[in-house]
Amino acid sequence: MLSGQVLHCYLLLHGRLSSHVITVAEAKRLAILGAIPEKWQIRERILPAVELPDITGNYIQGFLIPNEIEIMKADAVPITKQTASGNWSAVEVTEAFCHRAAIAHQHVNCLHEVFFEDAMQVAKELDAYLSATGKPMGPLHGGIETTMGYVGWVGTFEDKKDDLRAKVIEGKLVRELRRAGATVFCKTSVPLTLMAGETANNIIGYTWNPKTRRLSSRGSPGGEGARIALRGSPAGIRVPAAFNGIFGLHLSAGRMPYEGAANSIDGQNTILSVVGPMRTSIGSLKLLFKAILSQEPWFHDPLVLVMPWSDDIEMQTQRLIKASVKDPSLLTFAIMRHDSVVQPHSPDKAYNIDGGDGLTGQIALSGEGTIPQCFIQTDKHWKARDIAALNVQKRLYQKMYMEYWNKNDRLTGTGRPVDAIICPVAPHAAVIPRRYRHVGYTSFVNVLDYTSAVIPVTNAGKAMCRIDTHMNYLSETHEQVQSEYDAEIYHGAPVGIQLIGRRLEEEMILTLAEFISRELENVLK
Amino acid sequence: MLSGQVLHCYLLLHGRLSSHVITVAEAKRLAILGAIPEKWQIRERILPAVELPDITGNYIQGFLIPNEIEIMKADAVPITKQTASGNWSAVEVTEAFCHRAAIAHQHVNCLHEVFFEDAMQVAKELDAYLSATGKPMGPLHGGIETTMGYVGWVGTFEDKKDDLRAKVIEGKLVRELRRAGATVFCKTSVPLTLMAGETANNIIGYTWNPKTRRLSSRGSPGGEGARIALRGSPAGIRVPAAFNGIFGLHLSAGRMPYEGAANSIDGQNTILSVVGPMRTSIGSLKLLFKAILSQEPWFHDPLVLVMPWSDDIEMQTQRLIKASVKDPSLLTFAIMRHDSVVQPHSPDKAYNIDGGDGLTGQIALSGEGTIPQCFIQTDKHWKARDIAALNVQKRLYQKMYMEYWNKNDRLTGTGRPVDAIICPVAPHAAVIPRRYRHVGYTSFVNVLDYTSAVIPVTNAGKAMCRIDTHMNYLSETHEQVQSEYDAEIYHGAPVGIQLIGRRLEEEMILTLAEFISRELENVLK
Repeated sequence: MLSGQVLHCYLLLHGRLSSHVITVAEAKRLAILGAIPEKWQIRERILPAVELPDITGNYIQGFLIPNEIEIMKADAVPITKQTASGNWSAVEVTEAFCHRAAIAHQHVNCLHEVFFEDAMQVAKELDAYLSATGKPMGPLHGGIETTMGYVGWVGTFEDKKDDLRAKVIEGKLVRELRRAGATVFCKTSVPLTLMAGETANNIIGYTWNPKTRRLSSRGSPGGEGARIALRGSPAGIRVPAAFNGIFGLHLSAGRMPYEGAANSIDGQNTILSVVGPMRTSIGSLKLLFKAILSQEPWFHDPLVLVMPWSDDIEMQTQRLIKASVKDPSLLTFAIMRHDSVVQPHSPDKAYNIDGGDGLTGQIALSGEGTIPQCFIQTDKHWKARDIAALNVQKRLYQKMYMEYWNKNDRLTGTGRPVDAIICPVAPHAAVIPRRYRHVGYTSFVNVLDYTSAVIPVTNAGKAMCRIDTHMNYLSETHEQVQSEYDAEIYHGAPVGIQLIGRRLEEEMILTLAEFISRELENVLK
Repeated sequence: MLSGQVLHCYLLLHGRLSSHVITVAEAKRLAILGAIPEKWQIRERILPAVELPDITGNYIQGFLIPNEIEIMKADAVPITKQTASGNWSAVEVTEAFCHRAAIAHQHVNCLHEVFFEDAMQVAKELDAYLSATGKPMGPLHGGIETTMGYVGWVGTFEDKKDDLRAKVIEGKLVRELRRAGATVFCKTSVPLTLMAGETANNIIGYTWNPKTRRLSSRGSPGGEGARIALRGSPAGIRVPAAFNGIFGLHLSAGRMPYEGAANSIDGQNTILSVVGPMRTSIGSLKLLFKAILSQEPWFHDPLVLVMPWSDDIEMQTQRLIKASVKDPSLLTFAIMRHDSVVQPHSPDKAYNIDGGDGLTGQIALSGEGTIPQCFIQTDKHWKARDIAALNVQKRLYQKMYMEYWNKNDRLTGTGRPVDAIICPVAPHAAVIPRRYRHVGYTSFVNVLDYTSAVIPVTNAGKAMCRIDTHMNYLSETHEQVQSEYDAEIYHGAPVGIQLIGRRLEEEMILTLAEFISRELENVLK
């Protein structure tokens, strides 16, 4: 049963649709619910969001059995360890995840496709393989939550709506995951079953944030009329990660397989879409990324670069971190408090974490958040020369930022430029539906093709936030975003930061993000 | 003084030009000649090409002093060793190269810009640096021929024709070279002063092949009317290398700096133009490539990938080569005898070199030489959707070839697919002017963004060649190309092969090419 609020929003969304579309969508919605095994269907009334904003933690655990709770509490790293050693069977892990996904969906509406039975079949095969050979199938053996949460999957095989099985194999990345021993059990735009998909969807309606069910799990990017054609989702993976209080990784183009993922603008290559994983820990992000790279995806996807995981860079970064514990000036981070267009809601001291107490200067180029040239509207059909000119502009912007970054080596005292930038992900925590007005904090990273890791920091709290009523607004959007702050509704909304590195610096950024999240845990404990 | 034939061709080329253009071009041509120091200007009559086809070897050495000859005979690797240790001064090395370039230009018309004085100044600074610090400036200290021969340099700073000094610093690559200690002394489309540039040029006229001055040093690609817009030069670096009997390296996009290089279609990114070095040995190609990468060009050029030289891959390939000496089946090469469109002139047994005596199957996809979709004519202005569709087509072609390559692991017996493809560079040796009719052997590599090294093999010889008069032609172009074979004119024309690896396999291909060229030397000795 859907909560009243979800159903209400669902109907609202359908207000402008033809009766045929509504019928098809309704059928699809019921099909998803119908694919949930009867034993997991919730019969009792679900409390509305105002009464029960947060469905995570104890609440959702109330639906699960003790073994499932134990599995749920484990992260991908220990789970894979348990399944690879045979302590947990792939079947019991898969069942636990399917169960939780089923419960979550009935509360926040987060699944687009369900193929639990297929997943259980794969899990059985994995168990059989392990018991026959004594060896795990691959680095992700029995892993399951790893198979969700890739931007770009939503909409794959849309033409084959009725063929649920076809959706199991959707693109090179999923194939690599399966080869590494992972199990795919559903499709959603976010990774963990408690996390939610895109906001407005004519099939399933509105997906709510499980932490605070009056907020979006992921802002719908951009304004009303403008379609951002150069980027399937300028918010990328980082916004859903930040809004859900988990870790996310935005990769530079070419680092992970993309072939076969849904893309409404296939073939445009001014800014290549990238898939990005989200996980509950940096360790599991790394596990996943390394597992994918271990499959040598460059031999199967023409868009993937021949760049295996670099142990050298990881170790070099580790050494730097270790040395910086004694001498904090060895590691420097730039802090971008705002992008000079829209200042985030009630800037908080939590943003000021600086791993090395080093430079905390402003690295943001003035106005970098807005690169109007990079937004193409569909009503104008660009010609070859326009696109070529845009590509040149993009390269010049990349070059300008590159030199800007290079030059700050005079400020750091390490002989190197800053090692990374710490920066907001959006000008607000998980957003109120339809209030996502500014994508500047993520779009500039996309244009630069930089690496970015999202690190969850805290949750918005009524007590923590003061709104400055005498603020000098940076822009009209800034004023609007500030005016839309609501201490009640935002209470409990996850807040994340992003750690930005330069192009193709995934190894370094993941290693630094691990360090920062550890430091954060200590600080916030 | 120009040879009569060069002058004749020069005038021919100007037949259709306005008197103003002819005046400007004439002035430029004289400016280049005027920039050659008087002591190096040849006063006597130069024999015409029919009487003196080959100006290399003893002939050109007749113009040089013994010390210069010694320097000329050395390759970049020993030269850099000598200059870095102070045995040879950068000044004497630079002077020797300038002298030879001046002599060569007066025979084959190969220079576009001359800045000998500036080069001598840089050389003096290098010598001063070495004597003051005891250390070379960089891995290319005193190296000089390294600074030539990059496709894409011709035409740089065209707007600033009068500013010869400005041409010294032309693009990121040259800056990296200079930082590594190299000296730039002239501009030409080929690397060594004996090698020559693009065929038709309204400024300097026609550049001849120094080995056989009735043949082109580099074919003018493509047909008459069609402008190949997706590729500044589909023949890339490989054709001039092969036509001049030297080594060349075509890199995958992003491996070397490109920023600042001339590109008439800046911003198109369906097929990225690449610069490629040419040298007289694989060792010096490797030295150059490693020197460029040691400057970390990815911090200065947004289009360069963060991929330092991989010692691991080099050593791994070396081990494989070493093992294959005992067991030749460990290393396999595919031989592409022709591309099923145009069969090369009188296929020679020299093509059948197989480093490992292993698989010699045909890897060529039928008709791969012609990808008509990748040729855009300027009279059609493509729209965004056309370009996107073209990009998709290109990716599908790359994917198809990728799987085709992957699948041949069933044929090799090594557990891996073939390690590289050995293939012609063009359907003829260095070509007769205006007879370059088929670019298929290089364009398919460009579309695939593969790595390719050109290895000189032999020179065409009247005795070696038999033309089969009962040939079944593969295409009209094939028939035409065969009919244009002339045993007299082609006599002595250099013939090269290319060794093709997959995308971004520069380290492996350079290492294999070194091995193959060593084997070739033994076989052909």
